[in-house]
Amino acid sequence: MTLHLDDAAVRRLLRLEPLIASMRQALIELSAGRVLQPMRIVMDLPSPRGLLFVKPVLAGDVLATKLITQIPGNAALGLPTMLATIVLMESSTGRTLAVMDATWLTALRTAAVSAVGVDALTAPGPKVVAMLGSGALARTHALALRAVRPVSEIRVWSRNQQNVARCAQDVNGLSCRDAEEAVRGADIVCTVTNASEPVLKGAWLKPGALVAAVGAVRPTWRELDDAAMRNVVVADSRESAGTSPAT
Amino acid sequence: MTLHLDDAAVRRLLRLEPLIASMRQALIELSAGRVLQPMRIVMDLPSPRGLLFVKPVLAGDVLATKLITQIPGNAALGLPTMLATIVLMESSTGRTLAVMDATWLTALRTAAVSAVGVDALTAPGPKVVAMLGSGALARTHALALRAVRPVSEIRVWSRNQQNVARCAQDVNGLSCRDAEEAVRGADIVCTVTNASEPVLKGAWLKPGALVAAVGAVRPTWRELDDAAMRNVVVADSRESAGTSPAT
Repeated sequence: MTLHLDDAAVRRLLRLEPLIASMRQALIELSAGRVLQPMRIVMDLPSPRGLLFVKPVLAGDVLATKLITQIPGNAALGLPTMLATIVLMESSTGRTLAVMDATWLTALRTAAVSAVGVDALTAPGPKVVAMLGSGALARTHALALRAVRPVSEIRVWSRNQQNVARCAQDVNGLSCRDAEEAVRGADIVCTVTNASEPVLKGAWLKPGALVAAVGAVRPTWRELDDAAMRNVVVADSRESAGTSPAT
Repeated sequence: MTLHLDDAAVRRLLRLEPLIASMRQALIELSAGRVLQPMRIVMDLPSPRGLLFVKPVLAGDVLATKLITQIPGNAALGLPTMLATIVLMESSTGRTLAVMDATWLTALRTAAVSAVGVDALTAPGPKVVAMLGSGALARTHALALRAVRPVSEIRVWSRNQQNVARCAQDVNGLSCRDAEEAVRGADIVCTVTNASEPVLKGAWLKPGALVAAVGAVRPTWRELDDAAMRNVVVADSRESAGTSPAT
């Protein structure tokens, strides 16, 4: 029997703290070469800038495939721009154990990975956070960062001031009129946009600031300008980040 | 709301005749370049010769991803060696419309494609069919070929004589002791095995025989020897058949 978990069930069952611990361990397993993760398929969809990502992974007994669509135009329909489904199989037999709505899981998991990075790469103590982007990932990043560091201030900016105001309210943060205002002096900058042109300029970053660069999912898309990239870059996967010499 | 169709529902809803007509149309659409079908991911699983196939496709409004596992060892557990799940999405929004058990669908669909080929490439009139392989695909091929041609005789061979006897009974066919006996004089030969070494020798084929080569899903696996391949070869996709010069 296949278990079907809808969005409500996943929201009820998924806990942030064990998720962050799991993602930390998953990154360790991946770096140690104990996870088989072929290059994802990325497919263009008919909607403007619409994409499908297909991501299988084998980690011990777990054989999981995540399907994610990213369709910016969904926002106008009141639908999430990112929707996801996970199919979980038993690796020994291929039996499908569970099919899950992974929309919330993906948004929270992505933020959990950023939180693992922040926890590993920043000093303890309170942080000022700048959020470039005001969608689902901005909200989950606020949750996840607060789970690993005290956050003294969250500043929110995106191109749409109405979304900024709503998001700032949701994350108990401050609305910013421009990206520079949000970034100047911030300890942590999260870029969680659908931008294909840089929204973050390295010139704005204070020395030692950590940038969690989450968007820019296609090789030609960018959230960070050259100056921002001219720093230490840490990637979960060199291969899929496209920094490997082979690509 | 996502619709969940289990194996029983799919068996109840799926009809062979419209499936064959759909596959004929799908092959036309694919050949005409109206279908976006990236190269599938093939992943090795821990079980001996175990594989996961991940196959997304975009055809008009339909965005579907099929996950198929092929695990020969399942037979000993009384489980199908091939199991499949399809996730069907709305291409405009990425919403998951349905998740289906696609085990039966895959076995029948594969045979439906062979039937389209047989219908297009053989003369009308009764056919003698040789089935090399005695699993689920042998059974569905018997069904599908009978839907497009009168079948005067089905001869079944595989390495396991017990399976041969059972399959011959299921398809109302004759058991054969060796592959050559099955193939000599046959009009249509279906290779539906998990073999990685050739099971069909071209020397056995009568002139004008049609071979539906279904197995040998990895580049290094073969069901047909060089003599059998030294004939006209028709592939649904040159790219995935690996005959394209680029691969």
